[in-house]
Amino acid sequence: MGGGPEKEHLLIVLWQPEPKDVTAEIQRRFPHFEIKYFQQLPPEGGQIVDKRGQVPQELWQWATILITLSSLPARAEDAPNLKLIHLFMAGFDHYSNHPIVTDSDIPITSSSGIHGPPIAEWIVMTTLVLSRRYATEYEWQKQHHWGTGREMLVDGTDWVGKTVGIAGYGSIGRQAARVFKALGSNIHAYTAGARATPESRKDNGYIVPGTGDPDGTVPRAWYSGTTKESLHAFLSSGLDALVISLPLTPSTRHLFSTREFEILANTTHAADGAPKKSRSAYLINIARGALVDQPALKAALDNGVLLGAALDVTDPEPLPSDDPLWDAKNVIITPHISGHGTEYTLRAFDVFMVNWARHERGEKMFNLLDRHKGY
Amino acid sequence: MGGGPEKEHLLIVLWQPEPKDVTAEIQRRFPHFEIKYFQQLPPEGGQIVDKRGQVPQELWQWATILITLSSLPARAEDAPNLKLIHLFMAGFDHYSNHPIVTDSDIPITSSSGIHGPPIAEWIVMTTLVLSRRYATEYEWQKQHHWGTGREMLVDGTDWVGKTVGIAGYGSIGRQAARVFKALGSNIHAYTAGARATPESRKDNGYIVPGTGDPDGTVPRAWYSGTTKESLHAFLSSGLDALVISLPLTPSTRHLFSTREFEILANTTHAADGAPKKSRSAYLINIARGALVDQPALKAALDNGVLLGAALDVTDPEPLPSDDPLWDAKNVIITPHISGHGTEYTLRAFDVFMVNWARHERGEKMFNLLDRHKGY
Repeated sequence: MGGGPEKEHLLIVLWQPEPKDVTAEIQRRFPHFEIKYFQQLPPEGGQIVDKRGQVPQELWQWATILITLSSLPARAEDAPNLKLIHLFMAGFDHYSNHPIVTDSDIPITSSSGIHGPPIAEWIVMTTLVLSRRYATEYEWQKQHHWGTGREMLVDGTDWVGKTVGIAGYGSIGRQAARVFKALGSNIHAYTAGARATPESRKDNGYIVPGTGDPDGTVPRAWYSGTTKESLHAFLSSGLDALVISLPLTPSTRHLFSTREFEILANTTHAADGAPKKSRSAYLINIARGALVDQPALKAALDNGVLLGAALDVTDPEPLPSDDPLWDAKNVIITPHISGHGTEYTLRAFDVFMVNWARHERGEKMFNLLDRHKGY
Repeated sequence: MGGGPEKEHLLIVLWQPEPKDVTAEIQRRFPHFEIKYFQQLPPEGGQIVDKRGQVPQELWQWATILITLSSLPARAEDAPNLKLIHLFMAGFDHYSNHPIVTDSDIPITSSSGIHGPPIAEWIVMTTLVLSRRYATEYEWQKQHHWGTGREMLVDGTDWVGKTVGIAGYGSIGRQAARVFKALGSNIHAYTAGARATPESRKDNGYIVPGTGDPDGTVPRAWYSGTTKESLHAFLSSGLDALVISLPLTPSTRHLFSTREFEILANTTHAADGAPKKSRSAYLINIARGALVDQPALKAALDNGVLLGAALDVTDPEPLPSDDPLWDAKNVIITPHISGHGTEYTLRAFDVFMVNWARHERGEKMFNLLDRHKGY
């Protein structure tokens, strides 16, 4: 037959009204698409995944490509023509038990890569708020008080020559590394697989133009592994801050607990069991709350093992109002908003457009779910 | 005669106890120095410049080099042997009417260059606190409230592709530019003299290793001049933030007023005189409060001409508790602490050591006061 690419039926299911400038751009770049837009209600009770089945069955039947934030067909048979599902989320874990993931082989891509800029901003902002004691200054301003600022002079430091560890060197970790390097810090990266060659250090996912560490040249040192020993080697490499940007899987649940915090702070125990630390660090978690053992974190903060923590994610979410973590010493907690911003929608669609263009050129798509690894 | 460098009498006058590791390092690098350390009391009433004459006359007579934060000899005749005065401050304006400045030609160097890292951290932190609405999240946490974060989704943006204007491209401006570029922004620089050649764009002052923009390659565009027209050309270049890091001189006093804020916000006036802005910007001032017309700034903030302002400096300082600026819309005010940190002392001494080594090699010292320009 020859000719152009196959005709496709693109179904878009989002909470917002149709962003017509974006759908027009998709149509311009892919004139062989037929596009249908379905605006659904947000799921109930603060959940992400919709279980109410708002999307009509005939739309599932019709679609060959699905772009969605929170709705999947209940079973693969409901959407027999699907060639690709593109999720507006960075991770797959909300769907890890969904039949489409467990019982089908429909390719699924995430919007991983688009969260680098806003989340790195959140990481750097909260780390500086902690290290520069901004909360004190904020309260002074509310009282119209011109404070004396001795706290920073006595023990405050900046980030020049410090070492920042990034656990999980994806798009978020890379953009955070880029900014901390600009602040003067050294970067230590920790990844599951070894990154011994220049090729292996490249970012093969979607990259927001002008950001990140595309070639993986920012880190001064690379650590890797999936064992406690490899993690501990990384944590004991002299870190002043640890940024957690790992995926949550069964093997990373509660990966960071008392022992890890003590290693991070280089804590030793005297004969009488009293802890003694020779240094300390900040902990920043923007990934998933369950990566961290929260009661252990609360204790490490209150005991001064850690200098502070910035958490955009907790376990569970929302964090109950009576959870003791809210009042841990030197903690910042925000309600899973670090990735927010008006650029989100445009970038999530851009991932799909860049990716589908690769697919039509016969190139491998990026951001594909690996059903064996679970991410 | 030949032999090594001349014997010098180094007098150090600071508020703190002698930092013996630092004076030992000076002695190690300059074995031909005789060093005397005089710890003075901080001046009264929050002033910087000491007027109580705590330093004994015989010490002034003795010194050939003076390192000081807040004490100068009253007249040049009191210290007839001085070859150099090294100030622990970044600017000379506190001393601009002092007889040593007006009636002597003793070379004076500042510690300009050491403030880049901490002040750039403050600039980036406060800009992100404003643009990411962190105060809302901070208040949520105090109430143990898991907020919904819709504000950022509706109109929050990150700094990718934005334009940040830096008025005064010295060490602070360069380090701020470095970090904003890492965040994905474009940089527009504004300087008094034109920087048309690569050589003219270099930083010839002290640079904290691993920071700044030594070769001046970060800005996408350069603006220059000392007229209102040149300033307005810069301010109308599409800035999303303006960082003020200019010296305060008689000609820069109240340089930024109503008209400048309107140009920054691209404000036009309809036939009925009603202001209409097509965009807007944040204003950040870390230099001197009097560069800005404060009542005009308060009005521009409250009227929404500007998106927000972060001010580490005010006019006067301390800002009186009943000053209306404290409660301007979207303003951050901190008590002139952005340069604070424990690295300050070591770096201020390092400027002197690097500089004096240049002097002994017959090279030109940097950070020298230009008595004609006043900075």
